[in-house]
Amino acid sequence: MFSNLSAGALGLSLDLPTAVDLAAKHGFGGVDPDLDHFRTLGGASAVAEFAASVRERGLEWGMTGLPVPLDAPAEEFRRALVDLPEALELLTAAGVTRVGTWLRPMHDDRDHCVNWRLHAGRLALVGELLADAGLRIGLEYIGPKTLWSTERFPFIHSLREARELISDSGADNVGLILDSYHWYTAGESTADLAGLTDADIVSVDINDARDDRERDEQQDLDRRLPFATGVIDVPGFMDSVRAAEYSGPVKVEPFMKELAERPVDEVLEQISGLLDRAIAGE
Amino acid sequence: MFSNLSAGALGLSLDLPTAVDLAAKHGFGGVDPDLDHFRTLGGASAVAEFAASVRERGLEWGMTGLPVPLDAPAEEFRRALVDLPEALELLTAAGVTRVGTWLRPMHDDRDHCVNWRLHAGRLALVGELLADAGLRIGLEYIGPKTLWSTERFPFIHSLREARELISDSGADNVGLILDSYHWYTAGESTADLAGLTDADIVSVDINDARDDRERDEQQDLDRRLPFATGVIDVPGFMDSVRAAEYSGPVKVEPFMKELAERPVDEVLEQISGLLDRAIAGE
Amino acid sequence: MFSNLSAGALGLSLDLPTAVDLAAKHGFGGVDPDLDHFRTLGGASAVAEFAASVRERGLEWGMTGLPVPLDAPAEEFRRALVDLPEALELLTAAGVTRVGTWLRPMHDDRDHCVNWRLHAGRLALVGELLADAGLRIGLEYIGPKTLWSTERFPFIHSLREARELISDSGADNVGLILDSYHWYTAGESTADLAGLTDADIVSVDINDARDDRERDEQQDLDRRLPFATGVIDVPGFMDSVRAAEYSGPVKVEPFMKELAERPVDEVLEQISGLLDRAIAGE
Amino acid sequence: MFSNLSAGALGLSLDLPTAVDLAAKHGFGGVDPDLDHFRTLGGASAVAEFAASVRERGLEWGMTGLPVPLDAPAEEFRRALVDLPEALELLTAAGVTRVGTWLRPMHDDRDHCVNWRLHAGRLALVGELLADAGLRIGLEYIGPKTLWSTERFPFIHSLREARELISDSGADNVGLILDSYHWYTAGESTADLAGLTDADIVSVDINDARDDRERDEQQDLDRRLPFATGVIDVPGFMDSVRAAEYSGPVKVEPFMKELAERPVDEVLEQISGLLDRAIAGE
Repeated sequence: MFSNLSAGALGLSLDLPTAVDLAAKHGFGGVDPDLDHFRTLGGASAVAEFAASVRERGLEWGMTGLPVPLDAPAEEFRRALVDLPEALELLTAAGVTRVGTWLRPMHDDRDHCVNWRLHAGRLALVGELLADAGLRIGLEYIGPKTLWSTERFPFIHSLREARELISDSGADNVGLILDSYHWYTAGESTADLAGLTDADIVSVDINDARDDRERDEQQDLDRRLPFATGVIDVPGFMDSVRAAEYSGPVKVEPFMKELAERPVDEVLEQISGLLDRAIAGE
Repeated sequence: MFSNLSAGALGLSLDLPTAVDLAAKHGFGGVDPDLDHFRTLGGASAVAEFAASVRERGLEWGMTGLPVPLDAPAEEFRRALVDLPEALELLTAAGVTRVGTWLRPMHDDRDHCVNWRLHAGRLALVGELLADAGLRIGLEYIGPKTLWSTERFPFIHSLREARELISDSGADNVGLILDSYHWYTAGESTADLAGLTDADIVSVDINDARDDRERDEQQDLDRRLPFATGVIDVPGFMDSVRAAEYSGPVKVEPFMKELAERPVDEVLEQISGLLDRAIAGE
Repeated sequence: MFSNLSAGALGLSLDLPTAVDLAAKHGFGGVDPDLDHFRTLGGASAVAEFAASVRERGLEWGMTGLPVPLDAPAEEFRRALVDLPEALELLTAAGVTRVGTWLRPMHDDRDHCVNWRLHAGRLALVGELLADAGLRIGLEYIGPKTLWSTERFPFIHSLREARELISDSGADNVGLILDSYHWYTAGESTADLAGLTDADIVSVDINDARDDRERDEQQDLDRRLPFATGVIDVPGFMDSVRAAEYSGPVKVEPFMKELAERPVDEVLEQISGLLDRAIAGE
Repeated sequence: MFSNLSAGALGLSLDLPTAVDLAAKHGFGGVDPDLDHFRTLGGASAVAEFAASVRERGLEWGMTGLPVPLDAPAEEFRRALVDLPEALELLTAAGVTRVGTWLRPMHDDRDHCVNWRLHAGRLALVGELLADAGLRIGLEYIGPKTLWSTERFPFIHSLREARELISDSGADNVGLILDSYHWYTAGESTADLAGLTDADIVSVDINDARDDRERDEQQDLDRRLPFATGVIDVPGFMDSVRAAEYSGPVKVEPFMKELAERPVDEVLEQISGLLDRAIAGE
């Protein structure tokens, strides 16, 4: 696995060339691709050229967003399918292999069964379309009770459910986005991570939680940097990720807006160090 | 449909003969059977004789509890199946046709999919066993968010989910226990009741809610008598029940312990009147 | 319900204006719309005009093919979704309300579960897209064992399975195409048709079977005209259709190539008479 | 893994003590337990004593039949649950860990969905009951088309379906009985066996097929001994079993009645040699 600079996950507004420079400068192993930037480059071959320059600097691609809104109304979903080939062409040209999305853990109208069938059916379709482009899809389950309990019908909010959805989709290019924050808020332990392999994991996030809140009071958008409070057993989480022989990107996504107020180089030096520490696992 | 005296649902400790007397005295159309009382009578023919005497007083049987705990651990469920024939013999002798249970709307370990398959599978089995004895099973979904949100995995807490479970079970002797309290707390309207028929409904409960709480703050065990606050549209609910041409028992289950502190005759006169009013639908 | 002229189902090559003339001449109540013909008319308003002229002749629209191949490979399915709005615009302009497709009753690679999820998921999506255009989708299950047993994984080949798929799709604009030939070859009886309503049925086909073959030897593409052999209880089938208060088109689809060799007027006079007889139900 | 003497699978009528003697004499690594014999021994401690004597002769237990008929009518299934504790006590006393059953690959009334839910639900229940007794359940899918195509609704007849049923049951003590004969007749290859682990497999059967019949004409009860015709790639099958690091019994079940007509010692010497050859995999 490798440390990954995801500017968006840090709340930083960096264009991709700047992110690439900073990732290289601060020793990250990878950087998130940016489809919007690719679109400005004037075509697939220019994208391929740009991607080659990124690779030359020793950086791998992290993950970008799935260009299809899985649970949108049918017409919006259809339109995303219309536009999909253009996005896939650019992502393929860049050599990107990982896209991802989160699973909204509740719904006011779709009950669990209805929502499950919608997700499984669309995931099967999108999975097959992306497989042809060599892309894997990561799904992030969302753990905090303060989120899943806010509408009439709670939906997937645990690792086991996410794995069963993936299995039901029948798509073998769909896997998990594992985030220590969701793993913790879902009340899971390292036992839940046992048996996972590299093929099951598309991306890994490590975050810590506030130490002045109970598990069921934690907010999805108010987290801490890994190792900050020790509320979440990030070392144990990473031991399981290593045991899975995971080979992909690891990032942080703390939703702390104060990061954007500090000097960028200082922030990235800190983040890079935290990721190295987590990956090394000493 | 007919008004039904369910002593237990009123929090009253009445033995069955007393309940029968009181039901007749206060103009109820039916009374809940009591398997424990049947067991004291010394066999099926004595039970049949007793049941004949109840019918002679113009009373029908309401509903008693399903003698199998649907979601118990496997060994406990198995033991209930061992004992089932004895219970079925007595219920059959008495001419009872309705048994029911509620669906626990959450679980700390079983996620929604796992819990669904457990319920559907066991319901299929128990449904088939009870069909041979001429019994229908009513399932009551539980609506209050203050209950379904209390453990890790919310489960069935809406009419639509309950109907889909029944359909999945494949058992045609399984139907709904409709309670206006759950219908209200589940955020449902008369539109959700459209299309129901007598075959879909095994029992009906009417209750009102406290008027000093929001819908999502209502407690399962703190309700009001029908028409008391008007928070719940009991008349509209009953219009839908009538439209379904429902032919079974209607009762109240207010979980108000003050009822047990008032003179029984006074309470039952009031309840009987409320049920008559709801059934008449003026 | 009304008798419907479906030239394609009779093996006749008639352009739509000719079919309209012949339908009117021979007393049919409706005629199948033809999307390809609509496309030649130069836009939605021309289509609307043409449709008005058809209605003026007292004819209703039957059903045309669903313009999306439900079980195609993902990319082919996606492309059909790209083209869908154009088709929907024309069908809407014409006032068409019924489209349909058959369910392929076997597959060499997709097992029953995988195929089921694919159909349910895509049907949910397509159903929602067509609902916005006021279209209902009919699904025809295919009964002959000589077809469903020809590949590794038999799929839906009975009414009950088709109904469960429709229920699973969650789409309320999806219903059945009932064909007496499939009903017979699936080993079904009038009991299987009990409880159906007009909302469950999108189209009805009546055909008879050869009398020199056993049920399990009947071929999908070798049938007889209704009432021809009496192998299939067409009157009983139609009694059930009437009991459902079905209001849509009724056609024959005998797959008898000799029909195309006889004078068209003679054939249509015969077919119209057979349909009138079946609909009248004397 | 070890070679296993299953007298029943060879069509031989041997009481258990005789089978034990012959297994030891001819170099088998294990022998099938026999619940009926255990019942004659007069209680759990006598069974434990007998089992100890079998182990002392260097023999492990193979597999015996699951003492519950998974797809029986509900009342028959219930009765089997009543009797289950007695069977489990004896099997536990003997140290047996493997029981198994086959999955009937078709049904005249239960369609695929209905049959699936029945199997998944009962398997969940029985799995939990047997887990407490330390028993694993093996499920054998049946491959021949000459069997699954004989009733209205084909059911599970492939490895993938069997694995999905096991997953759906949620029971982690349920696995596969892999038989090269079903693997071949189901049209499967070694690719289908990839990724299996010891935890997925409860028992292994090796058989060959007749060389004068096409795959879809093979009969379930007319097979050949392993390596006899080479129609089935038994070596490739066993390579996959070895790759799974399978640790359990391997037997033959050829349904050749001529075996019972030859001298027992000659037959068992041959079988033992064939199993050794298959296990060694040279």
